[in-house]
Amino acid sequence: MIAQLANRYLAELDTTMRRVVDDMITAPDFGVMIRYPLGWVNQDGEPYNHPTGKRIRPILLMLSAEAAGGNFRDALPAAAAVELLHNFSLVHDDIEDDSPTRHGRPTVWVLWGRPNAINTGDALFALAYSAMQRLTTPPEIALKVWAIFNATNIELTRGQHMDMRFERQENVSVDEYVSMIRGKSAALVSACAQIGALIGSHDEVTAAHFADFGLNLGLAFQIRDDILGIWGDPAVTGKSAATDILSRKKSLPVLYGLSQSAELVELYGRETFGAEEVAAAVSILDQVDAQAVTQEYETRFYREALQALEQANPQGSAAAGLMKLTESLFQRTY
Amino acid sequence: MIAQLANRYLAELDTTMRRVVDDMITAPDFGVMIRYPLGWVNQDGEPYNHPTGKRIRPILLMLSAEAAGGNFRDALPAAAAVELLHNFSLVHDDIEDDSPTRHGRPTVWVLWGRPNAINTGDALFALAYSAMQRLTTPPEIALKVWAIFNATNIELTRGQHMDMRFERQENVSVDEYVSMIRGKSAALVSACAQIGALIGSHDEVTAAHFADFGLNLGLAFQIRDDILGIWGDPAVTGKSAATDILSRKKSLPVLYGLSQSAELVELYGRETFGAEEVAAAVSILDQVDAQAVTQEYETRFYREALQALEQANPQGSAAAGLMKLTESLFQRTY
Repeated sequence: MIAQLANRYLAELDTTMRRVVDDMITAPDFGVMIRYPLGWVNQDGEPYNHPTGKRIRPILLMLSAEAAGGNFRDALPAAAAVELLHNFSLVHDDIEDDSPTRHGRPTVWVLWGRPNAINTGDALFALAYSAMQRLTTPPEIALKVWAIFNATNIELTRGQHMDMRFERQENVSVDEYVSMIRGKSAALVSACAQIGALIGSHDEVTAAHFADFGLNLGLAFQIRDDILGIWGDPAVTGKSAATDILSRKKSLPVLYGLSQSAELVELYGRETFGAEEVAAAVSILDQVDAQAVTQEYETRFYREALQALEQANPQGSAAAGLMKLTESLFQRTY
Repeated sequence: MIAQLANRYLAELDTTMRRVVDDMITAPDFGVMIRYPLGWVNQDGEPYNHPTGKRIRPILLMLSAEAAGGNFRDALPAAAAVELLHNFSLVHDDIEDDSPTRHGRPTVWVLWGRPNAINTGDALFALAYSAMQRLTTPPEIALKVWAIFNATNIELTRGQHMDMRFERQENVSVDEYVSMIRGKSAALVSACAQIGALIGSHDEVTAAHFADFGLNLGLAFQIRDDILGIWGDPAVTGKSAATDILSRKKSLPVLYGLSQSAELVELYGRETFGAEEVAAAVSILDQVDAQAVTQEYETRFYREALQALEQANPQGSAAAGLMKLTESLFQRTY
């Protein structure tokens, strides 16, 4: 479904991203480290099209630009920017979380060590700004987009900070959890809709409605990720089963479980935590119906996203595209 | 000397930097991690004015703005941006180099762990952009400044990449070394002069002369750092003696030494490298006169900086200030 929507955009997005990287990165060996996480080369630098992420953020940005009355081509630099930024955050997250693989390949830090991976992430961060700078919108609009992007990037680090703090924090409330995912996940999704609409309409009020839509969509998206991180089918998600439980991540279903079951609290407090503990934890979560409770949250944010989208009054075929994208993300299994 | 020059600027710079951080970072515990490397709080978050770096970059930027015919106050957001960016790079460098202390205090990663230090650096990176975005220059000028800043930040990562690669690279040429410090150190110094002049004059030709001045000044500055990293007086530099030798850094004096002495090559290739090896290496470097040879490079770039400064045709009392700043950095001992 998304693939269908995306066909119009993805080839041009890819060209735009590659042009930014090719223009700014000329050192061959450094170039391999930067292009590898983008899926364009293998670890030896040989051209290779590795399946990457779902590119939901740039697609959302371009659809928003069109639905707000603009042309998706005017939004290409911004779409490239958010995708480069997303990849920067993945490269650094993988170091911070000690994750050995991503999209079925070794992560950057595994191949080239943590110091080089930190620096590669920093380069992707700067490249995201370089992409954004190529906007050909009127300067006043470009500067507003820049301001949104800056605030979003600070939100990303705030959310990441909370996520890491939760590991050591005994009681995490649902409010704190929502604040964390607002920063870590939803802020960028919101910025995509807002920036796209601002480029498409040059109107801040319209863009604010799109921002609200994106924020709620981003929250619903992350909560769905939490469900898939426990109950997702490894064959579909490409991740190992109950991966979030093994890393003892305090995702929403787990927070609910911890509030309902002293047994789960005890389990999560153990020194060692292996396959046996994972199975026991999932079993407890199933007993307390954590999946259904979490799904209620997803549904709530999904409905709020739809309401905000109505307020945003999207136009043309892109309006239908936004609707389809939103529907396809709700209760998704991949 | 610099202190004298700087008095006019530093109080307002500090206010500008604090305003950006206060506006954008409201989470108390995350705020401590961000304010600590800036010298504003101790590790418990208590207000504290710890001596920080020399603030040479923002001073150069503001002097360049005035010398190009502008007001230093118009350049304050950019001055805050380059200082925040410099601090971002130090926080990440300290992780990458495993450095336990900076300005006599434990580094961020020592206090809060590598994952939090990576994220804190990312926040400082985004804050630098937030500071820059506050420029009140005409939008066209702000967008040009943004483009310079982006290219500089990518240069920084390229230089850092080369620096790390040199550790594993057998033969490093002087050309490669100069390319490395151009990215890692001189690009930002160059950007300071260029951005300041662009804000002050709105003229790209003038700004290009300032960029050339800053680039050569930055190269001379880094080469002086290399000398101090081996022969600096620990009581003056605040670093331990021959610190660059202990870490087997391939700085310019060492590259020269390696090209002159097979004994030094053997020494640098040893499995263990302690106080005895450090003393032997310094002794070899003294025998081959590595300090004098390195100083010739410093002098050459210093002279080129002065020539470019003349071409830039700086005006008013700030012209004298730029001259004094440049002189004070040449053959400095601190």
